[in-house]
Amino acid sequence: MRRITVALAGLGTVGSGVIHLLQDQADLIARRADVAFDIIAVAARDPKKQRSFNIPQALWFADARDLVDTQADIIVELIGGADGIAFDLARKTLLSGKPLVTANKAMLAKHGSDLAMWSRKGNVQIFCEASVAGGLPVIKVLREGLSANSVTHVRGILNGTCNYILTTMMREQRQFDDVLAEAQAKGYAEADPSFDIDGWDTAHKLSLLTAFAFDTVPQLSGIGVKGIRHLTLSDLNDAKQKGGVIKLIAQSAKDPHGNITQIVEPLFLDSASPLAQIDGVLNAVEINTSHAGPIFIQGRGAGAQATASAVVADLIDFAMGRGVPFLKGRP
Amino acid sequence: MRRITVALAGLGTVGSGVIHLLQDQADLIARRADVAFDIIAVAARDPKKQRSFNIPQALWFADARDLVDTQADIIVELIGGADGIAFDLARKTLLSGKPLVTANKAMLAKHGSDLAMWSRKGNVQIFCEASVAGGLPVIKVLREGLSANSVTHVRGILNGTCNYILTTMMREQRQFDDVLAEAQAKGYAEADPSFDIDGWDTAHKLSLLTAFAFDTVPQLSGIGVKGIRHLTLSDLNDAKQKGGVIKLIAQSAKDPHGNITQIVEPLFLDSASPLAQIDGVLNAVEINTSHAGPIFIQGRGAGAQATASAVVADLIDFAMGRGVPFLKGRP
Repeated sequence: MRRITVALAGLGTVGSGVIHLLQDQADLIARRADVAFDIIAVAARDPKKQRSFNIPQALWFADARDLVDTQADIIVELIGGADGIAFDLARKTLLSGKPLVTANKAMLAKHGSDLAMWSRKGNVQIFCEASVAGGLPVIKVLREGLSANSVTHVRGILNGTCNYILTTMMREQRQFDDVLAEAQAKGYAEADPSFDIDGWDTAHKLSLLTAFAFDTVPQLSGIGVKGIRHLTLSDLNDAKQKGGVIKLIAQSAKDPHGNITQIVEPLFLDSASPLAQIDGVLNAVEINTSHAGPIFIQGRGAGAQATASAVVADLIDFAMGRGVPFLKGRP
Repeated sequence: MRRITVALAGLGTVGSGVIHLLQDQADLIARRADVAFDIIAVAARDPKKQRSFNIPQALWFADARDLVDTQADIIVELIGGADGIAFDLARKTLLSGKPLVTANKAMLAKHGSDLAMWSRKGNVQIFCEASVAGGLPVIKVLREGLSANSVTHVRGILNGTCNYILTTMMREQRQFDDVLAEAQAKGYAEADPSFDIDGWDTAHKLSLLTAFAFDTVPQLSGIGVKGIRHLTLSDLNDAKQKGGVIKLIAQSAKDPHGNITQIVEPLFLDSASPLAQIDGVLNAVEINTSHAGPIFIQGRGAGAQATASAVVADLIDFAMGRGVPFLKGRP
């Protein structure tokens, strides 16, 4: 059996989930892919913090960038943030010729073009399934499963927090502020919820789906973004009376002239639409294709285990020699 | 740009669809994968038959088994049938060390174990996305996207003909025999419809999903199979009164002791269930996993273009060096 050494930056919810998953599923992974992953190094701000896992063989680093200098075969970046340490680590990894796994939508959306250039020049792979829709393998479906298709239109529900709030408002007939406050108290929404509820988290994910669907680079600045903050319970009840629901929908389309439009906004959906059925924290994506027709996929868009599932699938793809050229870089 | 030579056996609906797709999407495939596929040889029973495509550079063979002796880098088998020429071709292909693309669910279900053995011994790949659910990349989702997960339960709607009949009976309040006769007249159902309506087409596909989900070999004989022939309009109306629908559902599950059960039968589904929403000729699969939670995917399960989309995605995977060990062979 082959052994692949892994260095992991970021030991928050997802990072811990990856360590648990690699340990819990080691036998299954060995059976399926004839490989064992050894976490030989990790980086986290507080090495003394109590952790839920035990990795006695791993070296601990305070500075994530030092992970690249270890013997690790592949670097996993789960720090987050478009710039700062995460981007420094990604750059250093790629320029060193080491493959990168990342769940960092903000970094990919902002620096996708540079990352693609380094990936191409160094012939080094970037894996990023966890960056959009958590445990849902939508990037793989789009880039590999539908690789023979032109895509005409992508739309989806990509933010579980917003969808949870809208679903709960309707189900319990409560106002937005009330449900948001409860979601914050329960930890479903951030203390500063604006990134989610104003549509920016959705917009970051949409920019990546758009880039993968239409073979371009992520363009965050071109997205019209409207969130759910202004929606009232009576808006939702009105929608129900008209035979539908209101959801925060991300969509992008390419017209016959090649112009791409990207929009994030609350939309009225007829009750019969598959996206109208997506309740609570679920995510879903609908991909309209030239030959395979419309493809619809739904599942858990967030959470430690679901997101770790995508990260470890990327590691297994690397181990099996599977990969996809990341994105088109600047011409 | 690399050139990959392809030999194609079977020029029916799907085979013609593959030729059209490769020609129509040649630019897109070149841009995405930096590869051109050249169909250098084809096999069909009647070489004089009028065709919808033009492949002047291809050699024509009457015996599909002769394709293996050409210079083709990869063989695409679209003849169908569990045994006969299709199986002879698959065996000869694998024993010659050439990779195989096949959409042949009956052959994979019956001879999966032997095919896996030859694949493993010769270190030669088998690609089979088109064998289950047409354009829906469910095998890729199961084996690659969810590769870090144990699967507990798979269920789906895998036969468009049955689902079309049940949907139409309900929508137009007509009896089974009446709708079946119309479907046959329109070409949606075969002259001998028993393979579809008695559940055997579904059972073949289920045996493959089960094998991929639980890392085993296909076991067609162990499936309890019940079709839709006995269902009356009043059965469907009763279900509606109880708040649901009746669908032909394929399901397999693995219990904590490792025992696998597989069943194909008409089932009552609550209207809120995602599978209850699947109408007409659509297919859908629900995969329950250890870490990613439940994943649901729906789309076109049949048709020339959708099935060709899966076959060409397999060719692109081959070109890009992506692959998955086919199945566990006999121990």
